[in-house]
Amino acid sequence: MQDKMKAVLKAEAAPGATIALVDIPKVGPRDVLVQVKAASICGTDMHIYEWDAWAQSRMQVPRIFGHEFAGEIVEVGKDVTELVPGDFVAAETHITCGHCYQCQTGQAHVCRNVQILGIDRDGAFAEYIAIPEKVAWKTGKEIDHMVASIQEPFGNAVHATFAGEIAQMTVAVFGCGPIGLWAVGLARTSGASTIFAIEPNAMRLDIAAKMGADYVLNPREVDPVQNILAVTDGLGVDVVLEMSGHPQAIRQGFKALRNGGRVSLLGLPSRMVELDLANDIIFKGATVLGISGRRIFDTWYRTRRILETGQLDLKQVITHTLPFDQIQEAMEIMKSGNCGKIVLTM
Amino acid sequence: MQDKMKAVLKAEAAPGATIALVDIPKVGPRDVLVQVKAASICGTDMHIYEWDAWAQSRMQVPRIFGHEFAGEIVEVGKDVTELVPGDFVAAETHITCGHCYQCQTGQAHVCRNVQILGIDRDGAFAEYIAIPEKVAWKTGKEIDHMVASIQEPFGNAVHATFAGEIAQMTVAVFGCGPIGLWAVGLARTSGASTIFAIEPNAMRLDIAAKMGADYVLNPREVDPVQNILAVTDGLGVDVVLEMSGHPQAIRQGFKALRNGGRVSLLGLPSRMVELDLANDIIFKGATVLGISGRRIFDTWYRTRRILETGQLDLKQVITHTLPFDQIQEAMEIMKSGNCGKIVLTM
Amino acid sequence: MQDKMKAVLKAEAAPGATIALVDIPKVGPRDVLVQVKAASICGTDMHIYEWDAWAQSRMQVPRIFGHEFAGEIVEVGKDVTELVPGDFVAAETHITCGHCYQCQTGQAHVCRNVQILGIDRDGAFAEYIAIPEKVAWKTGKEIDHMVASIQEPFGNAVHATFAGEIAQMTVAVFGCGPIGLWAVGLARTSGASTIFAIEPNAMRLDIAAKMGADYVLNPREVDPVQNILAVTDGLGVDVVLEMSGHPQAIRQGFKALRNGGRVSLLGLPSRMVELDLANDIIFKGATVLGISGRRIFDTWYRTRRILETGQLDLKQVITHTLPFDQIQEAMEIMKSGNCGKIVLTM
Amino acid sequence: MQDKMKAVLKAEAAPGATIALVDIPKVGPRDVLVQVKAASICGTDMHIYEWDAWAQSRMQVPRIFGHEFAGEIVEVGKDVTELVPGDFVAAETHITCGHCYQCQTGQAHVCRNVQILGIDRDGAFAEYIAIPEKVAWKTGKEIDHMVASIQEPFGNAVHATFAGEIAQMTVAVFGCGPIGLWAVGLARTSGASTIFAIEPNAMRLDIAAKMGADYVLNPREVDPVQNILAVTDGLGVDVVLEMSGHPQAIRQGFKALRNGGRVSLLGLPSRMVELDLANDIIFKGATVLGISGRRIFDTWYRTRRILETGQLDLKQVITHTLPFDQIQEAMEIMKSGNCGKIVLTM
Repeated sequence: MQDKMKAVLKAEAAPGATIALVDIPKVGPRDVLVQVKAASICGTDMHIYEWDAWAQSRMQVPRIFGHEFAGEIVEVGKDVTELVPGDFVAAETHITCGHCYQCQTGQAHVCRNVQILGIDRDGAFAEYIAIPEKVAWKTGKEIDHMVASIQEPFGNAVHATFAGEIAQMTVAVFGCGPIGLWAVGLARTSGASTIFAIEPNAMRLDIAAKMGADYVLNPREVDPVQNILAVTDGLGVDVVLEMSGHPQAIRQGFKALRNGGRVSLLGLPSRMVELDLANDIIFKGATVLGISGRRIFDTWYRTRRILETGQLDLKQVITHTLPFDQIQEAMEIMKSGNCGKIVLTM
Repeated sequence: MQDKMKAVLKAEAAPGATIALVDIPKVGPRDVLVQVKAASICGTDMHIYEWDAWAQSRMQVPRIFGHEFAGEIVEVGKDVTELVPGDFVAAETHITCGHCYQCQTGQAHVCRNVQILGIDRDGAFAEYIAIPEKVAWKTGKEIDHMVASIQEPFGNAVHATFAGEIAQMTVAVFGCGPIGLWAVGLARTSGASTIFAIEPNAMRLDIAAKMGADYVLNPREVDPVQNILAVTDGLGVDVVLEMSGHPQAIRQGFKALRNGGRVSLLGLPSRMVELDLANDIIFKGATVLGISGRRIFDTWYRTRRILETGQLDLKQVITHTLPFDQIQEAMEIMKSGNCGKIVLTM
Repeated sequence: MQDKMKAVLKAEAAPGATIALVDIPKVGPRDVLVQVKAASICGTDMHIYEWDAWAQSRMQVPRIFGHEFAGEIVEVGKDVTELVPGDFVAAETHITCGHCYQCQTGQAHVCRNVQILGIDRDGAFAEYIAIPEKVAWKTGKEIDHMVASIQEPFGNAVHATFAGEIAQMTVAVFGCGPIGLWAVGLARTSGASTIFAIEPNAMRLDIAAKMGADYVLNPREVDPVQNILAVTDGLGVDVVLEMSGHPQAIRQGFKALRNGGRVSLLGLPSRMVELDLANDIIFKGATVLGISGRRIFDTWYRTRRILETGQLDLKQVITHTLPFDQIQEAMEIMKSGNCGKIVLTM
Repeated sequence: MQDKMKAVLKAEAAPGATIALVDIPKVGPRDVLVQVKAASICGTDMHIYEWDAWAQSRMQVPRIFGHEFAGEIVEVGKDVTELVPGDFVAAETHITCGHCYQCQTGQAHVCRNVQILGIDRDGAFAEYIAIPEKVAWKTGKEIDHMVASIQEPFGNAVHATFAGEIAQMTVAVFGCGPIGLWAVGLARTSGASTIFAIEPNAMRLDIAAKMGADYVLNPREVDPVQNILAVTDGLGVDVVLEMSGHPQAIRQGFKALRNGGRVSLLGLPSRMVELDLANDIIFKGATVLGISGRRIFDTWYRTRRILETGQLDLKQVITHTLPFDQIQEAMEIMKSGNCGKIVLTM
C-alpha cells in the first residue's frame, strides 16, 4: 500500500479548503483503517469550510474535515476483536470517553469528553480514515455506500423523531434540510396522523411532499402557526420536530404546539434565542427535549432495521453526488440551499 | 343565614383593593358553598392587587380575588353526591372543562378552557365561596385550616419536584419563595443526594437551610453556577427546579445542569427570556418540562399522603398570619420579600 | 315512538339466548338513547351465550347482552350538554365511577367500581340502548356503522400495541382473533420491523398475512419459539402482544422474548397459568403489562385518527355480517373459529 | 508476593466446600488483582454450597465461589488505565460482553453473554481475585470494607425499588432477607408513605421495623393481603417489591396490589409458579418488572450517593461477621434464617 493519500484539508485558519496529499493515518491497537467510499456533507462542514465564528472558536488547523462516511476496512489494529479487513462500515462520529457519568449510565450521546471526527481529530473527506473499532458500525454489503454514509445524519432524524411518541400523533417538522426531510418520512412510516412540513425553500418542500408530508408550508408565503391551528381545530400539534435552528421558526414551533405536547430541538441556533417561556412552555405544560447526536447504539440499531426492511427510502433525500475533489462545487450548491443531501464519492 | 358577606374586592381597574360587603354567592346544582377559614396569598394575588400589565390584560372587574383557601362546607347543590355540609375542603383552583382533548386524556392540568378561581370568577378572599363539587378536595379534620389552605401552592412544588426522578439526584432549586422552599423539603424527604438552594433574600435562605438544603447560595454574593460545578466535580446537577422566573436565574440553572439532566420550569418570567439553546439544551440533551398547576388529582393524592404521614412539616414555610381584612398590610410584607407564605384567617 | 323493542335476551341462567320483546330503556337526566345500527360480537358474548363458569359467577339474569355497537342518538336526557339527537355514536363500554383513585388520576381504565355494558347492565344486542353521555363517543357520519361498532375491540388492540415502543421493533402477536389481527396491522403501519403472527387457525393466519405479518406461524405445525429465535439471530423479539389467553402460547411468548423486552398481556386465560418467572421474567429483565379495556379516552382519540387518516382498513378483519336475530348462527360460526370479526346489523 | 493463597473451593460436584491452597490468579492486560478484605454471602452461594439442582445444572467444578466483596488493588494489567494499586474497589459481578444488543443499548444488566463471578469463573471467597478493570468499582477509603462488600446485593435493592416511582407510594415488601430489608429502608428514606414488610422470620421482621416499616406482618400469623387491604381502604398498595421468590408470597403480592400498580419481581422461585393472570395482572392493568442484577452503572452511582450522604445505614442489616475460613458456620447460620447479611472478613 502506498503511504500518501488525497484529502480535503483545512490547512489554514481561513475560509476554503485544499485538496492535499497527506500521510495515510497510522492504526492504533484498537483502531481500524477504512478506505472511504462515500462521504456526505453536513452543515457543520460548511461552517468549517466558511470558517465562521463557531469554527474559529472550536477548531485547530491543519485538519482533515468531514465525518459522515462509509467504506471498507483495509487494516485492523492488533487488539481489534470484532472486525476484519473487508468489512463494510460507517461510523458513529462521536468518540466517547467511556468513563464519565454519562458514558457509564447509558447516556453516552452526551459524553462530557466527546471527541468528534473531522473537528477534534482528522475526518473523512479523504481516501482513508482511522477510527476506533468501537465507533465503527458494520453495514451490510447489500447497502449502497452512499446510503451507508448518510446513516449518521439520518440517525439524528431517528433520534429526534422517536424521542417520544409518534404513532397517531400530529407532527410539525420545522426546517426541511436532509434531517428534517427524513423526519417527515419517519413520521409517515411510523403512523403519524397529520404531518406539516415548514420550509422556505421550494425544492425542499417538494421533497417533503414526496416523503409524505400532508401539508407543506412556506413561511415566506403563509403563517405556519395559523395554518396548523386551523387544521387541528385550534388544538395545535402533539409533536414539533425543530430542525431549522432559526429563532423565528423555533418560536413558531412553540406557538403551534398543543398544551401538553412535545418538542424535539435539534436545529442549532447560531445565537441566543428569545422565548416566551411563560406562555409557550410553562402554561402549556410542554416537554422540550434537546437532541444531540445519536443514542449509542440504540439509534444505530433502529437505523439498521429501517434500512433492512426498506420501510423508508433514504436516497430520496440525496439530490447531488460529486467526486470528492469537487468539494468547492459541492459547497457552492449547499450554500444555495437548492439541495437535499450532497454525497461525495471517492 | 345572612345574605351578605365581607370580601376583598378588586372594584376598579386600578391598584389596590377594598373590603366590601357583597352578596353571598348562590349555589348551583353541582356546587358547594364553603365558609372560608383560611386563605393564603399567591404571587398572582399581588399582581392583581398592584394591577400590573399582566393583570390588566387578563382580568375583568369587579372581582373578588384570592384562590388558595380551606374551609367548611355549609351548603350543597341538589346534584352534589360526594360531599355534605360539615365537610372540610380545600380546592383545586383550576376549573377544567372536562370535554377538551387534554381533559379527556389525563392532562386536565393543561385544559384548553380552564377557568381560574379569583381570576376568571370570584375567589376566596371572602367569608364564603361557591365552587363546583368536582374541584373541592376533602381534607381531614385533623389538618389545620392554614395547612389545608396551602395545599394548593404546595401542590405546585409536588408537581415540579416529582415530574422526574428525585431520589439520589443532585438538585438545584432556583428561587426560594414558598414553592421553592417546599421543593427543597420534598427533595430532602425523598432521598435527593445534594440540594442547592439559590435565592437572594437572606430570610428565605435561612428557611431553605431549615428545609434541608445542603448549600444555600446567595447569587448577589457568589456565583451559583461555579459553586454547583465545584461541588459536583464539574458534572453539574441532575435536576434543576426553576422557581424564580428570573431570566438570569433561568440561564444559570441551565448552565448548572449536567448533560442529560432535567429542568422543571415553574417560575413565570414576566417577559421574553434569552436562552443559549444550542449549548444549554441541545448539546446537553436536556429535558425541559413546563410545570403548570397540579396534576388533577394525582398531585392532590400525593399531597394528602405527605400531610398524613407528616414526612414534611409544611408550616415551616408560613412566616406570617393576619386577619383577612389586613390584606393591605399582608401585601406590603409580601412586596418586601421578607417572608415565606402569608396566610389570612377569617 | 313505540315503547317495545326486540332484543337478544339472556332470560335464564342457562346456555342460549332468546329474541324477546322488551321495554325500550328509559333515559336518565345524563343519558342518551341510541338506536343501534350495528353491533359486533365479542368473545365475552360467547361466554355469556354458552353460560360457562365465568358467566355463571359474574352475571345476573335476565340481561340483554352485547356491548360493541354503534348507532344514532334518538333522545337525550335533560342534563346532556354535548350531544344531540341525530349524532352518531359508539361507546366506551366500561362505565367508570369517576370518584375512585384510579378515575381521579388518569387510570380510569382500571376503575375500581366499573360497570360493564351487557354484563352489569343491559347491553347492545337490541334495537335501542341507553348509555350515560360520558361514555358515548361521537363518530363521524362518514364512518360505516360496522366500522364504528368495532372501534371498541379495535381499541383493545390500540391499547396493547402502543403501551410501549413499536417503531422499528420486532413484534410477535400470539393469537389472531380480531384483536390480534388488528394488532398486526397496527404494528405494520407504525413502523415495526419484523412481525410474527402465531395462530392455529388457517383462515386467521391468512388474514394476518394480509394485515402485514412477515411470518405466519401455525403452532400445530411449527415451533414458534424456534422460528422466532432463528429469524432474530437468537435474540428474540422486542415486543410480544399476547392476544390468545392460552397458557401454552403465553409461555411461548415469554420464551420468544428478548432480554429486556416488553410483553402486553391482553388475552384472558380461563384458569391459573404456570410461568417460569425466574428465567422468563426476572433474569430477562422483562416488562410485563396487563392490558385491560381502553385508556379513557386516549385510546379513542388514537382510534379516531386511525380511521380518519385511513392508515389501516379495519374492515379487513370483518368476515361475517348477519342480521341481529341470527345471533344463534353467528355464535355457531364463532365457535368454529373460522372467522374474524362478526358484525350484527339491526 | 507469595504465589499461593487460601480460598473456599468447591472441589467436587457434591455438597460442602473446602478451604484449599491454590494459585493466586494471573492478571490479564485489562485486569486488576484485588486483595479481598471482606466478602458477604449471597443466597446463591448457599445453593452452590448445598449443591442443589440449580447448582448442579449451572456450574463446573472446581470453582472458587463467592462474588460480593471489597478489597484493595495490588496489581494492574498493562492496559489498565483508570485504576492503580492501592485503590479500594468493589465489583459489579456480572461481566458483560460489551458487544451484544443489550450491552450496546444501555441494557447491559441483561447481557446475553454474561459471565458471573463465582459461578462462571473463580470468585471472591479467597485472599485474592482477578477481575476485569471494567467491573471494578472504585470505593472511597472512608467506606468500611464490610459496607463496600455489600454494595453489590444492596444494588439489587436499589434497582428493584427505583424501577418505578416510590415517593408518596404505598409499598409492600414481600420477603425480608437482606435485599428486602434494604428495600424497606430505601422506600423509607425516599418518601414512601406507608410501608408493609411481610416475612415469616421474627428476627428479620424486627430489623424491618428498624429500617422503617410501618407494618410488619408475619404471614404465618396473619393474612398479609387482608391486612394491606384494610389499611389502604381496600385500594391495595401502589408498589410491591417481591424479594422472597416464594410462590405463595408472589400470589399474595399480586392480590395486595392496587389496580394500575407496579410489581418489581426480584426473588427467584426455584420452580414454576401458578398465577391468576386474568385477575391479578390483566384486569388490574398491572406493570410487572423483572429485576436482574444492577443497572450498569446507574445503580452503582446511586449506591455511591446513598453511602456518601449517609441517608441510609446499610450496616443495620449485617447481623454476623466471621473470618472467611468459618464458611461452614456461616452457612449453618444462613440456613437457619436467623440472620440478616453475613459478612466474611479476610
